[in-house]
Amino acid sequence: MNIALAQLNYHIGNFEYNTKKIIENIEQAKAKGADLVVFAELAVCGYPARDFLEFDEFIELCEKAAAEIATKCHGIACIIGLPVKNDILAGKDLYNAAYFIEDGRIKNIVKKALLPTYDVFDEYRYFEPASHFECIRFKGQKIALTICEDLWNINNNPLYVSSPMDELIRQKPDLMINIAASPFSYCHDDERVVVLSDNAKKYKLPLLYVNQIGAQTEIIFDGGSMVFDKKGKLVDEMPYFKEELKIYELEDGHFKGHEPIVHEAAPDIEQIYEALVLGIKDYFDKSGFSKAVLGLSGGIDSAIVCALACRALGPENVMAVLMPSKYSSDHSIDDAIDLVKNIGCKHEIIPIAAAADAFDQMMAPAFQGLPFNLTEENIQARSRGIILMAMSNKFGYILLNTSNKSECAVGYGTLYGDMCGAIGVIGDVYKIQVYQLANYINKDGIVIPENSIVKPPSAELRPGQKDSDSLPDYDILDKILFQYIELKQSSAAIIAQGYDEALVKRILKMVNNAEFKRYQTPPILRVSPKAFGMGRRMPIVGKYLS
Amino acid sequence: MNIALAQLNYHIGNFEYNTKKIIENIEQAKAKGADLVVFAELAVCGYPARDFLEFDEFIELCEKAAAEIATKCHGIACIIGLPVKNDILAGKDLYNAAYFIEDGRIKNIVKKALLPTYDVFDEYRYFEPASHFECIRFKGQKIALTICEDLWNINNNPLYVSSPMDELIRQKPDLMINIAASPFSYCHDDERVVVLSDNAKKYKLPLLYVNQIGAQTEIIFDGGSMVFDKKGKLVDEMPYFKEELKIYELEDGHFKGHEPIVHEAAPDIEQIYEALVLGIKDYFDKSGFSKAVLGLSGGIDSAIVCALACRALGPENVMAVLMPSKYSSDHSIDDAIDLVKNIGCKHEIIPIAAAADAFDQMMAPAFQGLPFNLTEENIQARSRGIILMAMSNKFGYILLNTSNKSECAVGYGTLYGDMCGAIGVIGDVYKIQVYQLANYINKDGIVIPENSIVKPPSAELRPGQKDSDSLPDYDILDKILFQYIELKQSSAAIIAQGYDEALVKRILKMVNNAEFKRYQTPPILRVSPKAFGMGRRMPIVGKYLS
Repeated sequence: MNIALAQLNYHIGNFEYNTKKIIENIEQAKAKGADLVVFAELAVCGYPARDFLEFDEFIELCEKAAAEIATKCHGIACIIGLPVKNDILAGKDLYNAAYFIEDGRIKNIVKKALLPTYDVFDEYRYFEPASHFECIRFKGQKIALTICEDLWNINNNPLYVSSPMDELIRQKPDLMINIAASPFSYCHDDERVVVLSDNAKKYKLPLLYVNQIGAQTEIIFDGGSMVFDKKGKLVDEMPYFKEELKIYELEDGHFKGHEPIVHEAAPDIEQIYEALVLGIKDYFDKSGFSKAVLGLSGGIDSAIVCALACRALGPENVMAVLMPSKYSSDHSIDDAIDLVKNIGCKHEIIPIAAAADAFDQMMAPAFQGLPFNLTEENIQARSRGIILMAMSNKFGYILLNTSNKSECAVGYGTLYGDMCGAIGVIGDVYKIQVYQLANYINKDGIVIPENSIVKPPSAELRPGQKDSDSLPDYDILDKILFQYIELKQSSAAIIAQGYDEALVKRILKMVNNAEFKRYQTPPILRVSPKAFGMGRRMPIVGKYLS
Repeated sequence: MNIALAQLNYHIGNFEYNTKKIIENIEQAKAKGADLVVFAELAVCGYPARDFLEFDEFIELCEKAAAEIATKCHGIACIIGLPVKNDILAGKDLYNAAYFIEDGRIKNIVKKALLPTYDVFDEYRYFEPASHFECIRFKGQKIALTICEDLWNINNNPLYVSSPMDELIRQKPDLMINIAASPFSYCHDDERVVVLSDNAKKYKLPLLYVNQIGAQTEIIFDGGSMVFDKKGKLVDEMPYFKEELKIYELEDGHFKGHEPIVHEAAPDIEQIYEALVLGIKDYFDKSGFSKAVLGLSGGIDSAIVCALACRALGPENVMAVLMPSKYSSDHSIDDAIDLVKNIGCKHEIIPIAAAADAFDQMMAPAFQGLPFNLTEENIQARSRGIILMAMSNKFGYILLNTSNKSECAVGYGTLYGDMCGAIGVIGDVYKIQVYQLANYINKDGIVIPENSIVKPPSAELRPGQKDSDSLPDYDILDKILFQYIELKQSSAAIIAQGYDEALVKRILKMVNNAEFKRYQTPPILRVSPKAFGMGRRMPIVGKYLS
């Protein structure tokens, strides 16, 4: 049996676009001799469609698209993910399902049983879990088809009380297929290989796994579709962050021409780089925009974002705005200009003194001689926000936010100032990883100016200010943050690792007290297992470690 | 049996505060002769604790608080909600549960089976559903204890495939108790009475229902705890938006001294008013703040928010900032000053011309003579945002956002400008309801100036601008928005009701295209069944009706 895996980039709710792409791939697969072509989870509508799923009309558009796709399935069968209505009166209105289409007709509807409802996932918000399991019969073979999470209940502390493959295996299937929408994080690909391999091994069946690629606002799918033999050995791996259609010839449980290979993960920082470039590109492509603007301070964060944007959109589509204040160091402009020259993007220099002075005068009667403090620092940061949004409004540029994860975590940023933007490019990248990204970008020659990398980080909002005045060194800060945010450790557990007690308590309190700021930040491209945004939902007026 | 219902206002994660309050109420109930005192769902930690629940330390703090509470339960038994660990290996780590405490010991742990996971609710994110059901035995009676949603599976299109009361009824209980965290919306109280009454009627048992009150950021609990006889007749109702401890004497299935009464709902607009006042008050109280600032334009929206804030915090704690631009009408300042005089709050007048001029000059080289457009309108709105945040930063005022639901819906507002604020006070109140609120506030004498009510709405960001230049009349706009947002109707269904096709399509497109703005707005006090924020989760780069 020749099985084609179609690893594609879908656009949520863009039925015309998705349907056209799916049909093209059906035709290509057929032309290449495939008996069956397999698309990803919820391919018809894109993932995650969120509350679009609550609109009957949206579900009808899914059905209509699937009906059109079915008409193309002659001489080739197809497996494709879509939401389907629950026709039983009780329970949620929908299933997260897949059609098996043969001879132009829907032969099977397979439903997902294990519905991820944690981190960025909200599937039980929409879907009823499957309670009935049946293999697909095709060309004399029985296919155990499961959907993404259905195979993920295999570890020692399972999240679900049942396992769909334990039901399906009783029907003695000949192979397993799993269709997925499995988002990227820099730790996820190794885990994925292990879980899939464990399934193939446990059930003694060959396994074909198809993921999707592409960014859907903050969530980035990395592809890496895979094929395992019945011993659980990986025999092929499709590319990461790229579309591909590939055909596998399965004969007597063996994938012809494929021998066991070793999964070699790219270095974390390379994966993060590729994910962020795709994240920017898809945000713009799918929103119908092409041009980006950002504030370039001469520091490392904005330099990295500028480099990523230029790679994603082309330097001709990137406008860097330099906005020196009276507290900016001499080097700031030079370093920013160096980057612009290295990278070839457009730039403007717009000093902010006139606005800062105007606000000083306007506020003087109300402020009654109170001394310069955080207020005036914020006025400068917010004046820059106004300039960037003005460039955006006047010319149709989309503003990129340049805050890193360490800053977002402790609230070291000005709401409506440097926290502005349509998308947070490095909001899930700790400062220490920002330096790693700089070195990665510079690996074939200097792009990020050396001085932006080596100088002490500073917001430059008052004379001689340095981040280290109010924050610990980033190598300590980031480690404590990782323990708290990614690993959800208590302060006691973190202190027990040898960190200073007062410091740990201060940092955790800063994180929790900054919740109100993070609520209003742009969506953040997710590259870690725990990003700020939809995947981390904290009370604002709650009192805990605060 | 004397059963006390404790309808209280909890603070999420504030164990010291909650525990003290709970113990005080146990002691009061005991002093008044109660055999049993009943507290609400998740009373120990507050609702919704969201991802705090994912921290082991947080759960341990719940256990510790419950242990302290248990020591006070001598001579009185207690039912109280809290999260408990799932000690079975498979499934989610927690249950949404209740302790039955007698003689200082935990005698029963009752677990919630139906886990709301829709709108603002995320319970399956944290909790495993109960699969085992057992009545509590107390003083020779069997109590069927359920938790909130457990009783809500009673209509014709149930959301769940099982019903806990159908299990419990087999054990022949003598009464039902339901503990809840049931949030307010202006349509919810009538529905609640019907659902609870239907349960009492169906199972032929008396029912005691205890809800909580208080606002937790955007979610507002309204209380209205209730008691039903075994025929499903309402026999008593506790107050709305107020704490109360009340004792009911249950004898042979009859509540002594209580005869059937009729639930008389307060008018919607009065409920909304009370909810918003409580929402503001609790946001400040629970965050540890006391003073608010807002921009006062002379228009009706900011006037309403000012009046609500003065009621919630006291006029001496409210600072209204008037920020006229060169396009402000003569009446704007007069109307705003009239309100300030009527209401007695503080005010400052800070004209924005100097900032607008400074930005004009600063942007001139980049803008190269391009004409005044939306960009310059936004610069003015954002300059006001800077002024308000400067007042907040300098004096510790918390900024109230004054955008109404109609504006939020269609994106008629400036991100980082008038969309700034810590909490959106009327972001779930349509413009038409804003007028109703004005009349309600003025019912005993003019507070909101007549002119703010009768003049045509305008953002006053360019000469002679009116909302009606770019938006349809609010009475039409709000009806179309309600169909789309609250009722999730398709454009076809709305057009079929007789609205202009082009208008409907334009409005729905505006709503979907403004998603990126709403992602960055402050949390909004929820008073409707479908508010913007956590309860409405839409893709940003998705393409649907856009």
